[in-house]
Amino acid sequence: MNKDKVYIFDTTLRDGEQVPGCKLNTEQKLVIASRLDELGVDVIEAGFPISSPGDFKSVEEISKVVKNATVCGLTRSVKKDIEVAAEALKYAKRPRIHTGIGTSDSHITHKFRATREEIIERAIAAVKLARSFVEDVEFYAEDAGRTDNEFLAKVCEEVIKAGATVLNIPDTTGYCLPEEYGAKMKYLRENVTGIDKAILSCHCHNDLGLATANSISGVINGARQIECTINGIGERAGNTSLEEVVMILRQHPYLNLDTSINAKLLYDTSRMVSESMGMPVQPNKAIVGSNAFAHSSGIHQDGVIKNRETYEIIDPKDVGVSESAIVLTARSGRAALAYRAKNVGYELTKLQLDEVYQEFLKFADRKKEVVDADIHQIVKNTKVYKEIIA
Amino acid sequence: MNKDKVYIFDTTLRDGEQVPGCKLNTEQKLVIASRLDELGVDVIEAGFPISSPGDFKSVEEISKVVKNATVCGLTRSVKKDIEVAAEALKYAKRPRIHTGIGTSDSHITHKFRATREEIIERAIAAVKLARSFVEDVEFYAEDAGRTDNEFLAKVCEEVIKAGATVLNIPDTTGYCLPEEYGAKMKYLRENVTGIDKAILSCHCHNDLGLATANSISGVINGARQIECTINGIGERAGNTSLEEVVMILRQHPYLNLDTSINAKLLYDTSRMVSESMGMPVQPNKAIVGSNAFAHSSGIHQDGVIKNRETYEIIDPKDVGVSESAIVLTARSGRAALAYRAKNVGYELTKLQLDEVYQEFLKFADRKKEVVDADIHQIVKNTKVYKEIIA
Repeated sequence: MNKDKVYIFDTTLRDGEQVPGCKLNTEQKLVIASRLDELGVDVIEAGFPISSPGDFKSVEEISKVVKNATVCGLTRSVKKDIEVAAEALKYAKRPRIHTGIGTSDSHITHKFRATREEIIERAIAAVKLARSFVEDVEFYAEDAGRTDNEFLAKVCEEVIKAGATVLNIPDTTGYCLPEEYGAKMKYLRENVTGIDKAILSCHCHNDLGLATANSISGVINGARQIECTINGIGERAGNTSLEEVVMILRQHPYLNLDTSINAKLLYDTSRMVSESMGMPVQPNKAIVGSNAFAHSSGIHQDGVIKNRETYEIIDPKDVGVSESAIVLTARSGRAALAYRAKNVGYELTKLQLDEVYQEFLKFADRKKEVVDADIHQIVKNTKVYKEIIA
Repeated sequence: MNKDKVYIFDTTLRDGEQVPGCKLNTEQKLVIASRLDELGVDVIEAGFPISSPGDFKSVEEISKVVKNATVCGLTRSVKKDIEVAAEALKYAKRPRIHTGIGTSDSHITHKFRATREEIIERAIAAVKLARSFVEDVEFYAEDAGRTDNEFLAKVCEEVIKAGATVLNIPDTTGYCLPEEYGAKMKYLRENVTGIDKAILSCHCHNDLGLATANSISGVINGARQIECTINGIGERAGNTSLEEVVMILRQHPYLNLDTSINAKLLYDTSRMVSESMGMPVQPNKAIVGSNAFAHSSGIHQDGVIKNRETYEIIDPKDVGVSESAIVLTARSGRAALAYRAKNVGYELTKLQLDEVYQEFLKFADRKKEVVDADIHQIVKNTKVYKEIIA
């Protein structure tokens, strides 16, 4: 069965880079952009050209080097922004302008001090202007998560008529629950005239830890693009993690949704972005954390050694990690100890293992992690040492 | 309207501590346990007493110091495990034994090499034995996420009859989607005879980044306990984050669900656990990351300065963070610069701000973050400096 394609819109270099202390220079951005292209993302949001001369230059240079992906530049619904973005994108093979405006009452009242009618007019004008420069125009309805659905549908209809090809429905504050965000997408699929002319896009923030779940709920309910970043970086609690949504779709084939990502490059790409931004990935980060495939408890280690699928659903190799590490701590069981002891040359009988395990526990209670060198020491301390090395 | 209470079962000291390299000594565990008690968790899973002498001692000592929370010890469905756990818990005011066995076909076949009938017999025997020692017995159906619902319901029925007070339905491999996990809870609520005598509990792992969303889906569908850890630590990609589920329920009052957690202690507790385990929290971690409330882009900063709720849904003070930081980078706008300049003593007119902002952009393109000292330098470099300080 042919799967529906979910487009991956990577915004590591735009929304991701909006992190305090993580500014990249143009050269660093070019390295990451080339890697994202290789990874197979469909769209690279390269920057916000009007925001600074450095950002303009980065978007321009990225446009020159990217071979396959669409290159996208962000703008507000402001004439000058759009003109400058078009200029920055002029070398791109597949340029996209990403323009938009806040549509929630909170944004309309506090930020724009405008009316709903004025907001729609500005949105239409921005999309039309962008379409005069490029064929591919994405519109964002900022704070769509808190915009009432009827008004949001009206905005979508109007910008589709004005030429928008993609509709970005951001949960700007990371407030939505997955059911709500999915219901919003479903509402738009069912109530926006002309919706087939545009792709609905998920743009979720992680303030409550729900960005990934919301994006998945969005595509289950009809969206076909996910905006995300490597390692989920981004302002505040960050954006949707690219690696998480890609692997969820791959691990749930019955959803009939897939991306074009080459998952084998995920781990390396995660490291590259973490290092160049100086943004550490916590050890327990899903998919790309250093512990994501590490087992230390006895029960789990025993299960994994008997059959990897008992506890792991992703083969670490599929995301570019060489093997699941069996780490020895005071929580480890006999099976893990026997496995690691065998790796360093000791084939233990059941009785020998009992003896070595007791020694191991005393040792491990004093030390956080038992490494290969410690295993030799532990074996030496036992009464059965001579028998083992005989 | 009275809200339904969701019990918080903290397993930082058991499932959380099963992290390679994060073993704590008894003294460190006592400090954390006392803090968890103060935070208002309902249950503290203190360890796995049979697993090592150190773990036994920790559970025993924690039982002595905890004033309000139930103290829980983990066991397998093994006689000796349960006897040792009962012994370790003997000083607890409210002891709970947490016993269980794998129920998925994968676990039954590969791990236990048993039949479904044998698994049920072992489960019943374990619960009965545990009940002979304590009144509060939680049963876990390991790998429930991949156990077929009909068999799972049968296991639940039998262990309730045997005396189980809480039924833990773990998504051991972190495989479920929120809809699936919620549907499983709903199925059990509707199909298990005697379900009103027990509390259904969510125990989710974060391998695909969905632990939080799955737990919330679980309680929306009838579960009333969430098993979680501070900072979401735990084996592999970790467990559900306590701080995330607590704040999601608080931020969505219409769900009519709440916990007894004193959220003002969340940030401090997060730091305490991170430091004593040596497990860094990534800056973009929801709720407790160092950037969780930091705004650096111009558009967002402008919004926040006009009205905090434009971009923030949680008041940082509510989780114990003193204020949202307005960080200055090349992405920052005039409003942020004006705000920070005012903080260090410069009241700028609109024209002065334009001039200072141009100088700021040149400076910020070369430096990742602009600090207060830099602002003085930037102002000094402008033509309007004399006018400003006049």
